[in-house]
Amino acid sequence: MQIHSSITDLRAALSQRGRIVFIPTMGNLHAGHISLMEQARAHGDTVVASIFVNRLQFGPNEDFDKYPRTFQADCDKLAAAGVDVLFAPTEADLYPEPQEYLIEPPGIQNILDGEFRPGHFRGVATVVTKLFNCVQPQVALFGKKDYQQLMMIRNMTRQLALPIAIVGGETVRAEDGLALSSRNGYLSEAERAEAPRLYRTLNEIAAELRAGNADFAGLEQAATAKLAAAGWQTDYIAIRRRHDLAPAADLDQPLVILAASRLGKTRLIDNLEV
Amino acid sequence: MQIHSSITDLRAALSQRGRIVFIPTMGNLHAGHISLMEQARAHGDTVVASIFVNRLQFGPNEDFDKYPRTFQADCDKLAAAGVDVLFAPTEADLYPEPQEYLIEPPGIQNILDGEFRPGHFRGVATVVTKLFNCVQPQVALFGKKDYQQLMMIRNMTRQLALPIAIVGGETVRAEDGLALSSRNGYLSEAERAEAPRLYRTLNEIAAELRAGNADFAGLEQAATAKLAAAGWQTDYIAIRRRHDLAPAADLDQPLVILAASRLGKTRLIDNLEV
Repeated sequence: MQIHSSITDLRAALSQRGRIVFIPTMGNLHAGHISLMEQARAHGDTVVASIFVNRLQFGPNEDFDKYPRTFQADCDKLAAAGVDVLFAPTEADLYPEPQEYLIEPPGIQNILDGEFRPGHFRGVATVVTKLFNCVQPQVALFGKKDYQQLMMIRNMTRQLALPIAIVGGETVRAEDGLALSSRNGYLSEAERAEAPRLYRTLNEIAAELRAGNADFAGLEQAATAKLAAAGWQTDYIAIRRRHDLAPAADLDQPLVILAASRLGKTRLIDNLEV
Repeated sequence: MQIHSSITDLRAALSQRGRIVFIPTMGNLHAGHISLMEQARAHGDTVVASIFVNRLQFGPNEDFDKYPRTFQADCDKLAAAGVDVLFAPTEADLYPEPQEYLIEPPGIQNILDGEFRPGHFRGVATVVTKLFNCVQPQVALFGKKDYQQLMMIRNMTRQLALPIAIVGGETVRAEDGLALSSRNGYLSEAERAEAPRLYRTLNEIAAELRAGNADFAGLEQAATAKLAAAGWQTDYIAIRRRHDLAPAADLDQPLVILAASRLGKTRLIDNLEV
């Protein structure tokens, strides 16, 4: 596996590489990422991953400094997964000067995760666009665990006429249902045992919806209360229309349930399409 | 000359075309545009122009509806200038849905022309990015007459890591000094006779600066007053540092004088590097 940190070197390496499939990450790779790497091969000739912990998408009180950085282990996993090229820019490579030109998403950036992470999706949209321009892939893969992010990247790519097909990868879960996430490593043993409740809660709501319960606000409130009783601090449990993440109005449309909740200091997110 | 309106057709036509040089325009082409087309050939194998009057960069009280549209004459001029491919999308091609993902420039978008045209440069940055993504050129040419625009497109291209070299083309002037512009067509005969005063004013300020006069505010005010006496309504006459368009602080730095002023209903802009 080739590893490049400079944009110039990367472009030279990719110039004759056929159809390029790209998977951007922030490192600390788990089986969810590796699943994307393995799916990537089917979409093109050269699989390019990136590792870059993007300061721009972290709020001032978020975990940028302590975000887990495990570069050597990540390289081993990527090589084993058949990744051809790793782009691992430093901050000086990607932000040699303060980033002043930003991709500004519409109002959807301020709901759900965006309500609790002001500026987060602007930072995501900007770095993804910049990474796209560095790698110039024909296909890019993103996990469905970050559902709102995937939707916004899809919409942004279409709206900016980026010549890239966006592919969503299914969420990979532990045997007990917990969605794999780099932030799971922050959990204490007791919190890790408790953590699967989030996905169970999503499934309970889904069962109610399938049974015809359309009291969306009531379902959201009841789930929040049950999580609170088990020690969770919930940012949101939200039943939304899949196509634009607006609040669900009735049961005759594809829905998705999205959640973000904190166990101790660790913020977990998950979602389930219904 | 090939003409395409759909993004898909355009991309197919450009897929094996070597190094692509791109000149975006809003049509109503004059010798300034044609000069860019002729310079383009030296930068690559295939010269692509676009004609698109971009609603997004016009304010609600600006001249979007009456902006001159002269498509057939433009095609003749482009073909004669050796342009290989013209991209002429309709609004449905480029904005099939409301444009919600925008390129947000930094504070420089709100000074000088930006102060008088709120949202203008956001609209320019967004459409240029989108046109870049459609055409995927290696080089793009923009006229220096739109000085602030050229600077912002340069900065945006670098900051978003777009793999495109930005080349500025010198302003082309009528024999009496008036910078060529599509909006010159709005001028009455009397206004057209008066119009060269704008460039003369810039040259008078430049002569003062070269003579060591560093009373920047005084020079700006005197010029504005002289224009007013001749019937002009001035938006700004501004002596600025070239590299970031901040107000000039002393004479030991490369400067540029920028102006926007109205004759009747017609708004003219011009600039002069010192």
